[in-house]
Amino acid sequence: MQAWLSHYDRTTLSSDLVAAVIVTIMLIPQSLAYASLAGLPPQVGLYASIAPLLLYAVFGSSRVLAVGPVAVVSLMTATAIGDLAAAGSQATWTLALTLAFISGLMLLLMGFLRLGFLTNFLSHPVISGFITASALLIAAGQLKVILGVQADGSHFFELMWGLAKRLPDIHALTATLGLCTVGFLFWARRGAKPLLLRTGLSSRLADGLAKAAPVFGIAMTAALTWAGQWHHQGVRIVGTVPQGLPPLTLPLMDWAVWQQLAGPALLISVVGFVESVSVSRTLAAKRRQRIEPDRELIALGASNLGAALSGGFPVTGGFSRSVVNFDAGAQTPAAGIFTAFGILLAALLLTPALYFVPQASLSATIVVAVLSLVDLRILRRTWVYSRSDFMAVATTVLVTLLAGLEAGLMAGVSLSLLLYLYKTSRPHIAEVGLVPGTEHFRNVLRHKVWLSPKLATLRVDESLYFANARALEDRVNALVAERPQLQHLVLQCSAINDIDASALESLEAIDQRLREAGLHLHLSEVKGPLMDRLQATDFLQHLSGQVYMSQYQAVAQLAPEMLQGA
Amino acid sequence: MQAWLSHYDRTTLSSDLVAAVIVTIMLIPQSLAYASLAGLPPQVGLYASIAPLLLYAVFGSSRVLAVGPVAVVSLMTATAIGDLAAAGSQATWTLALTLAFISGLMLLLMGFLRLGFLTNFLSHPVISGFITASALLIAAGQLKVILGVQADGSHFFELMWGLAKRLPDIHALTATLGLCTVGFLFWARRGAKPLLLRTGLSSRLADGLAKAAPVFGIAMTAALTWAGQWHHQGVRIVGTVPQGLPPLTLPLMDWAVWQQLAGPALLISVVGFVESVSVSRTLAAKRRQRIEPDRELIALGASNLGAALSGGFPVTGGFSRSVVNFDAGAQTPAAGIFTAFGILLAALLLTPALYFVPQASLSATIVVAVLSLVDLRILRRTWVYSRSDFMAVATTVLVTLLAGLEAGLMAGVSLSLLLYLYKTSRPHIAEVGLVPGTEHFRNVLRHKVWLSPKLATLRVDESLYFANARALEDRVNALVAERPQLQHLVLQCSAINDIDASALESLEAIDQRLREAGLHLHLSEVKGPLMDRLQATDFLQHLSGQVYMSQYQAVAQLAPEMLQGA
Repeated sequence: MQAWLSHYDRTTLSSDLVAAVIVTIMLIPQSLAYASLAGLPPQVGLYASIAPLLLYAVFGSSRVLAVGPVAVVSLMTATAIGDLAAAGSQATWTLALTLAFISGLMLLLMGFLRLGFLTNFLSHPVISGFITASALLIAAGQLKVILGVQADGSHFFELMWGLAKRLPDIHALTATLGLCTVGFLFWARRGAKPLLLRTGLSSRLADGLAKAAPVFGIAMTAALTWAGQWHHQGVRIVGTVPQGLPPLTLPLMDWAVWQQLAGPALLISVVGFVESVSVSRTLAAKRRQRIEPDRELIALGASNLGAALSGGFPVTGGFSRSVVNFDAGAQTPAAGIFTAFGILLAALLLTPALYFVPQASLSATIVVAVLSLVDLRILRRTWVYSRSDFMAVATTVLVTLLAGLEAGLMAGVSLSLLLYLYKTSRPHIAEVGLVPGTEHFRNVLRHKVWLSPKLATLRVDESLYFANARALEDRVNALVAERPQLQHLVLQCSAINDIDASALESLEAIDQRLREAGLHLHLSEVKGPLMDRLQATDFLQHLSGQVYMSQYQAVAQLAPEMLQGA
Repeated sequence: MQAWLSHYDRTTLSSDLVAAVIVTIMLIPQSLAYASLAGLPPQVGLYASIAPLLLYAVFGSSRVLAVGPVAVVSLMTATAIGDLAAAGSQATWTLALTLAFISGLMLLLMGFLRLGFLTNFLSHPVISGFITASALLIAAGQLKVILGVQADGSHFFELMWGLAKRLPDIHALTATLGLCTVGFLFWARRGAKPLLLRTGLSSRLADGLAKAAPVFGIAMTAALTWAGQWHHQGVRIVGTVPQGLPPLTLPLMDWAVWQQLAGPALLISVVGFVESVSVSRTLAAKRRQRIEPDRELIALGASNLGAALSGGFPVTGGFSRSVVNFDAGAQTPAAGIFTAFGILLAALLLTPALYFVPQASLSATIVVAVLSLVDLRILRRTWVYSRSDFMAVATTVLVTLLAGLEAGLMAGVSLSLLLYLYKTSRPHIAEVGLVPGTEHFRNVLRHKVWLSPKLATLRVDESLYFANARALEDRVNALVAERPQLQHLVLQCSAINDIDASALESLEAIDQRLREAGLHLHLSEVKGPLMDRLQATDFLQHLSGQVYMSQYQAVAQLAPEMLQGA
């Protein structure tokens, strides 16, 4: 049983109800829009916002996450099923819910295997870059609908170029309608609330109304289209949307189809999970609540299975709807349950009113929603702080724009991991000396320290493993070659957290070479867990020197004159 | 100009000449055997041992490395070209030298790009596992030749099972010949030298003669085959080997073929380079000489181009021939040049004598040579010291045996890198306290240390990056939750070598949360390079606490009573 249920009272109920009304109003146009982005009939967007919301409320660990169709996952769905069937057909729909079914099974399996930690390998910069580039890609894809032209192209620059070539064919009425909606929605984000406040409304009501701007925009354009009968002049409209409960649906049980969808389903699962967990973590941190990644996997898995069985398509926790839910004051998952009933009512009663909604208005709401996700400042921020993070973001953005979502994410993740490996393969190795008047040892190049000609201390600032074992060997060889008086070499191991089998072989080789040259190799400040493992081998028995608990003790015994600064 | 040339004198000359004679005698049967392993006419093995040896002597950085056909690369060549043409045909030969040409170009390019460091990412256990499994695979493939049966199969167990099924079809005469040769060669390794010494020979001569055992074995079996005319009874023999200088050959300039060979050529280049560098490093270390990986790339690239233009096939620095060269007293690359002339003489004069050599004897020399590379103890050693190294070796061995060389190497490298990443994503985080009477801080769970209820110190034993930033957040949250009296949290950064952009965001989040709970976050012992980077951001300005040079100073200021063990 969920903890929040036992404390549920009237105040919480009213907060949740208000939030649910606001979110419902916002979700109706968004659900239609994302369904059309995925190449599916509009009502599928509504269906995908009912069962998943209920199931997440039961299984999820976030109190405010709102689950349903989101932009990136909808685009990935369109890409995955686009090659297999014509957009808008019954076959596409069946494929989309099969995709949701497979993705749901994968998420459940990952949850049971406790693979939630895998998301740790997606760095923040890569996620930011991916979301930004996907948003640009989605916006670029919607422009042709807003302008009423036929244009092709899959990657960003192709899309923009295709659009530029077809500019003469713009459908003037559609473009006017679409661009005005875009303009209105952008204005409404900042301008609507102050205007409403000036009319004397309460701040809360003004806020709620401002959030309903997309609904207002769509209602207005639908009314105008009806009044002017613009659909006879070439303005594309939503048309008949079936009215009724979500249907009970079954995924295709065709092994060949499952094999083709398995790859995209895995990527959709991972991307959806990462997006969802990022959102829920951000919101949970504001109220000091906790998110459990493995439970989130199970909740999202259940939500997707629910979507598959009730005529939906792949879903995940959405950024904008969750933030609206949070800001509107939702306290518990009950808000999600109320929202689900709101959308259910819309599916039962409201669909005839959607007939005259222009496709261009729906696309306008998508463009405005996704452009708020674009954050190109991440490029500048990472450039200043860390070139390798910058390279990872820049690569993610470029590859996503040029080669699509899957390739972009793969490239970003691989590059960030490879850059990390590359950095660890060239460790910072400092020679250290005693800071006068302390027992503390620091880099000789950066601090005034005391040294001894017969003792040298190296501090390796990295765990030793196969990729960097060579670097230490080279450094020790160089040091020994240039110090004829040297008798003792101490490795200060304070930053060495692990030594793998390859590095142990290297250490044995170093010890052997030093011994042959009449020197002794000592270790100091070896950490407990590492010492345990070294003691399981015969390395310490053969070592030409000693192991000291602290670097200071090593110097006190091996070169006591150094303690006086001799 | 090479440094060794200016010091070349008569003693060095005589050492080099003796070594060259021994290596030449050993190389003749080996070259024939590896050519047949690659599915090529026997003389190709001789050609591949002439120009490459000369070119390596000019460009290489090792003084004793002997370049030519080696077992693993020959098997990889057979796999790469086996699908494209029938074994032993002219087309196979052209493909093999095209493969050498592409591989040579790749090695040169890698050398000019200074990519020698990439081999650092192959861990010792993975290399050992790969060599061991390849040796088993090669030996298994030769058994059918030794037993004189037709058997198919590509992976190890398939080969063994195919052989088991065909055991009734064994060709008795071939099998007797082959197994006796194997037995003789195994015995000769240990038994020949003592026996020769007892006949009164000098140790050096006895050693040289013992190394010539394969030549003796092959000569004997050839003589027996001639005497009994066994080739009329079904014993397969080498047959006519063309006599003369290596031909001038040109690679196929067919783009489609190059595309097909590019993948295998890259793997052959990498594997060959790694094997060669491992050998030359091992031998150079014994005489305190240095190997330069980038120069080795260029030398091996030139050797392969040379092989391609003189009728050879892919070559690299071989283990057994280099060790023999080293043991026989080779001092300079001149030994390699003399060996090349030895093989040239063999190609000019000796080939008629090879007519009656049984294929089974050649296979016997391969089996005995490769089985000396098998080292299954690596499994036990890594099991004791490091489970993740063990998993990497075991995977490399199994995948190589089950799915072939390329898959095995890829699996081993990927797994060892992934395991390293996995380990770093779950860092060891210790709470530390003051060791009484020192300025040294150690893990509270392992040492008797002084603590304070108002100050806690965490030492993270890993660089902070995207994959482990979450782990620190979780640990800090848990610690703060269980210590109501806590006022200061110090992060001892002695083991933190880098903080990437994601981890910096996490630290900012931690600082923010501690500040809201009325606590201060301090850092101590931040390394110089890291401090430089942090100072480029505004993190330190916003930090709720201070940065201390040493952990002791932090405690002295924040909780001085702790220094008295209060």
